[in-house]
Amino acid sequence: MTPTITAFANSPDEGQGQARDMRVRWALEEVGAAYDVRLVTFAEMKAPEHLALHPFGQIPTYEEDGLALFETGAILLHIAGRHPGLLPADPHAKARAIAWMFAALNTVEPPIVEHEAAGYLEGDKPWHAERMPIVEARIATRLAQLAAHLGEAEWIDGAFSAADILMITVLRRLEGSNLLAAHPNLLAYVARGEARPTYQRAFADQLAVFEGRDQSAEAD
Amino acid sequence: MTPTITAFANSPDEGQGQARDMRVRWALEEVGAAYDVRLVTFAEMKAPEHLALHPFGQIPTYEEDGLALFETGAILLHIAGRHPGLLPADPHAKARAIAWMFAALNTVEPPIVEHEAAGYLEGDKPWHAERMPIVEARIATRLAQLAAHLGEAEWIDGAFSAADILMITVLRRLEGSNLLAAHPNLLAYVARGEARPTYQRAFADQLAVFEGRDQSAEAD
Ligand SMILES: N[C@@H](CCC(=O)N[C@@H](CS)C(=O)NCC(=O)O)C(=O)O
Ligand SMILES: N[C@@H](CCC(=O)N[C@@H](CS)C(=O)NCC(=O)O)C(=O)O
Repeated sequence: MTPTITAFANSPDEGQGQARDMRVRWALEEVGAAYDVRLVTFAEMKAPEHLALHPFGQIPTYEEDGLALFETGAILLHIAGRHPGLLPADPHAKARAIAWMFAALNTVEPPIVEHEAAGYLEGDKPWHAERMPIVEARIATRLAQLAAHLGEAEWIDGAFSAADILMITVLRRLEGSNLLAAHPNLLAYVARGEARPTYQRAFADQLAVFEGRDQSAEAD
Repeated sequence: MTPTITAFANSPDEGQGQARDMRVRWALEEVGAAYDVRLVTFAEMKAPEHLALHPFGQIPTYEEDGLALFETGAILLHIAGRHPGLLPADPHAKARAIAWMFAALNTVEPPIVEHEAAGYLEGDKPWHAERMPIVEARIATRLAQLAAHLGEAEWIDGAFSAADILMITVLRRLEGSNLLAAHPNLLAYVARGEARPTYQRAFADQLAVFEGRDQSAEAD
């Protein structure tokens, strides 16, 4: 059965692909699986029908054969369990790739989300300018550790995996800040991800929604 | 082969069980698996030998048969793959439990860690008192959504699972604040977790390290 994901009806970033449905679209393109998209407005996201799918009232969700999932990390792991191409077959390599999925979401993403929250929740506060360097220093620590680990490798742990989808989409949230510039290898890593045809198809499909060219997308 | 985990040689919380090795100890107790503990000082945690195991220089790590893992979410998933008792057998129920593992770590924990960081990084800043309600409101939103989902259920999604270990240890980080008090069902949920004999053995073992009674612990 073709899975259905949810995405923003009204893209807050005007189709730059920062919304987290991008992670699921990219993963589905990697495995060559078709999917349907149901667009939800902000009001619909907080209404009972959507809260039954996503207790925190967010996108994306993933529905298939009576299963309803939320959390991009869990959705990617689920897709990886159904199709080859997102996680290594070797059990140790697979466990390590999963560790990097959690690292993307529990170690690298949180200070980046904090940086965004500082802007939209505290951007008008008198302390904002003085506080930003404190928030940025936490991101800089994580980026330096990540860059040291990556070195000149192509992907985060051996072959391309779901961990790279998560880590690259997390790092992309820093586009427009100067924080990545200190680490040419991380910039190249993000660019390598964005150059994949699978990424580009996923990106085009989310952009088509914003441009009103498409109300439902499909991997092809 | 008996796995080895790392934990703080010097407990910053004086054995209250807030350090994240507690999650791994609890999971290993749930499945009845023995384990060894290697204690690391703060200096050791940031040295090359430990960074080879944990690129972000933290505890816990998990080593077994040539596999080295970090990230508590990944470690719990790995243990769940080797032993029954941490995830449901039914594929849909299992996928949902994994979604709740990610929800604990990527949705509920980040604002709680922010609350802690506000204390130790910005506690002496002139804006601290005025800023705290902003940080607390974000936690309150997540707690209200979580409480609405949990209702009067015993565990977060059906039977007790690794998701409850993560969610309960995340919520325990709020002990000492008033934020949980608004939700008696969440307080009862945390207490239910803490009442499990497996939790109590794990707690006693990490406390024994702090009290210097034990340099290596074992599940029994
Ligand atoms: N931890 C979640 C985060 C989901 C998330 O933050 N979604 C955003 C869009 S990218 C959202 O729905 N924001 C609206 C809101 O939180 O009200 C995941 O990885 O799936
Ligand atoms: N995302 C990691 C977090 C690990 C973590 O924050 N560990 C803390 C102890 S509870 C630590 O080592 N802190 C010292 C540091 O970061 O320098 C996980 O879930 O394993």
